Amino acid sequence: MSTYPTLSPDEARKELLKLRQSIDNIDNALIHILAERFCLTQKVGELKATYQMPPSDPQREAQQIKRLREMAQSAHLDPNFAEKFLHFIITEVIQHHKAIAKQKIDKKNN
Amino acid sequence: MSTYPTLSPDEARKELLKLRQSIDNIDNALIHILAERFCLTQKVGELKATYQMPPSDPQREAQQIKRLREMAQSAHLDPNFAEKFLHFIITEVIQHHKAIAKQKIDKKNN
Repeated sequence: MSTYPTLSPDEARKELLKLRQSIDNIDNALIHILAERFCLTQKVGELKATYQMPPSDPQREAQQIKRLREMAQSAHLDPNFAEKFLHFIITEVIQHHKAIAKQKIDKKNN
Repeated sequence: MSTYPTLSPDEARKELLKLRQSIDNIDNALIHILAERFCLTQKVGELKATYQMPPSDPQREAQQIKRLREMAQSAHLDPNFAEKFLHFIITEVIQHHKAIAKQKIDKKNN
């Protein structure tokens, strides 16, 4: 049975706007948490570049994927989506790390 | 100047582990917030399917992109990344909405 069986079109529209307001609140939280995550990975990038550690770390990534898949399962989020999400973020982070490492090398060579 | 100019390799490794612990905490928060976001979009999907509203809404998406880009800017997050992130999430959500709409049609036809 539908969760919304008896709404008028106008009520349905109002319900949609209410849900969208909550989604917007959640997106605002996500943006701020992601900003904080990139602050941390920026520090990781500097540390790795200074101490010549490789930008990516497959073992660490495998642990992250395993942990987040399990956590997604218990939060009723599709584990495949959680894994895709982590890959999406990590791809961006590795690009940042490479840029930081390149900056350090360029500085050394100037 | 580097943020980490004088660490021993062992200290650098410890600092990396500390940063990773914070990143893991943030990822746990992200997974739970995303789970909540998908609960809300699941409700949106049901509402849209019940009242025959289209699964995607380009005008709403344009508003979301504009708002999140501005918010990203003020949070020192790359606005292009914020936009890519929203597209990534919305693509998943629209797939869910289409699946919900299909389920409703299949139920009607059975």
